[in-house]
Amino acid sequence: MECVPNVSEGRRRETVEELASLLRAVPGISLLDTSSDADHNRTVFTYVGEPEAVLQATEAFCRRAFDLVDMTLHTGGHPRLGAVDVVPFVPLRGMEMTEAVDCAHRLGQIVAEMGVPVYFYEEAALSPERRNLAEVRRGEYEGLRERLTESSGRPDAGPATFNPRSGACIIGARRPLIAFNVNLGTTDLDIAQRIARAVRHSSGGFRAVKAMGVELKELNVVQVSMNLTDYTQTPIHRVVEAIRSEAARYGVPVVGSELVGLAPLEALDEVVRYYLQLHDFSSAKIIESHLL
Amino acid sequence: MECVPNVSEGRRRETVEELASLLRAVPGISLLDTSSDADHNRTVFTYVGEPEAVLQATEAFCRRAFDLVDMTLHTGGHPRLGAVDVVPFVPLRGMEMTEAVDCAHRLGQIVAEMGVPVYFYEEAALSPERRNLAEVRRGEYEGLRERLTESSGRPDAGPATFNPRSGACIIGARRPLIAFNVNLGTTDLDIAQRIARAVRHSSGGFRAVKAMGVELKELNVVQVSMNLTDYTQTPIHRVVEAIRSEAARYGVPVVGSELVGLAPLEALDEVVRYYLQLHDFSSAKIIESHLL
Repeated sequence: MECVPNVSEGRRRETVEELASLLRAVPGISLLDTSSDADHNRTVFTYVGEPEAVLQATEAFCRRAFDLVDMTLHTGGHPRLGAVDVVPFVPLRGMEMTEAVDCAHRLGQIVAEMGVPVYFYEEAALSPERRNLAEVRRGEYEGLRERLTESSGRPDAGPATFNPRSGACIIGARRPLIAFNVNLGTTDLDIAQRIARAVRHSSGGFRAVKAMGVELKELNVVQVSMNLTDYTQTPIHRVVEAIRSEAARYGVPVVGSELVGLAPLEALDEVVRYYLQLHDFSSAKIIESHLL
Repeated sequence: MECVPNVSEGRRRETVEELASLLRAVPGISLLDTSSDADHNRTVFTYVGEPEAVLQATEAFCRRAFDLVDMTLHTGGHPRLGAVDVVPFVPLRGMEMTEAVDCAHRLGQIVAEMGVPVYFYEEAALSPERRNLAEVRRGEYEGLRERLTESSGRPDAGPATFNPRSGACIIGARRPLIAFNVNLGTTDLDIAQRIARAVRHSSGGFRAVKAMGVELKELNVVQVSMNLTDYTQTPIHRVVEAIRSEAARYGVPVVGSELVGLAPLEALDEVVRYYLQLHDFSSAKIIESHLL
């Protein structure tokens, strides 16, 4: 099982390091990646292990993160509802989605007991309108106090009262997702937003793309920040090429891209096939895939 | 240890399958890939295992291949000196090159006892002029009878007499090599040869590229057939882009490419960095690299 919690802290190194150390100390867990972004003010942790070990690690992780991160002080470019904003469980090779859903629901009860409202999303959602993460996060932390008073905002677990320090926690189960951002050589946020709308599913773009435009003030660029929710349907290269093509109409170059967290080897298959015209390439052509 | 013998048979399925079955039956060996090419009339087998197991498997493999492949009947587009044309040993993660050289020299003595002249190349070469495979193979099978009579053609092991059925066997040790071919949408062999000269080291091209132009009559195209001998110095994408650029001057398109055998995951690092502008990508971003 893989778990990829997103925490609303990407600036204070010592907080991120303390949470990473906690994960490294849990037996049976391998912390694979920690990606912080100061503009987003957000850190994504990626770790794997047997389901029970992952669940235990995540409980300890959430408890400490709620201590360390204070949402009343949080600012950042990425939408968020709480200190431990999103916790997805991802079944790896040979595991069933139902096991990930089970982990999500069990963690939800534990977080609820910590006094934090919990929403379940995607495969762990208890109702269809909670499947989509963007919908669950609508109104963000700033709108949460009011939202909790509405029947449509009632949490799936935990108190329906506003917890100013921790906000709410969105817990779910999903297929492997690729968090992929493309940076544009301009400070014009409007261009990033137009391109985000062009490539994302919700406004007519690719089936498996969620996207938004974000300012990266530190780098003096804007970014198309994306989740690629199914790289078998919508491969990375097709999205990158569409962004290059749309950016060109504004005379804006793509200056770089970034992968937040990790990606499965298989996600590179189509990238290599397309750019190298290596029509019959697959992960099976990579030595390491045979040594697993 | 990896071993990647190249056998001068790429047309008769049953011969290739018999040799593959032999390898599959050796305990401690994993046959990772078998790539046959009918135009080259050549098959590349890729397998890994502990050094002793690899050496034993390769002995049995050579013995059977010498039985099955008759060089007096061989035609094909790829240069070759014998039935078991080239046998490279490749040290994998954490192994020393000296271990691969040791395997090469031990196999050489065994093949010599089978009555086949042996040349050692690259890291296993006994003299500088034998390091380069193309030099060792100069004159090919057809010139071997005469070459064996010259002092410069004296084998490193085995008889200095011509073995018409098996030719000679070139055994060595080397770093991981990528056998990569690019197909051009033309039947004009001259264009493939010009492009091969443009990209290969020996005529002014990239440091770690060996290349030649080959006709693929079955597909009605020509091919730039290459060995990329060090993908850290000369990455795949740079060679592909240079070939596209040179082909364009003749109005010829690249119609596809192929990877013969396997490549290490690390060889994709620069490909992904370049085409996706994913400047800080590395294999460490791939989940599977952490599960090895």
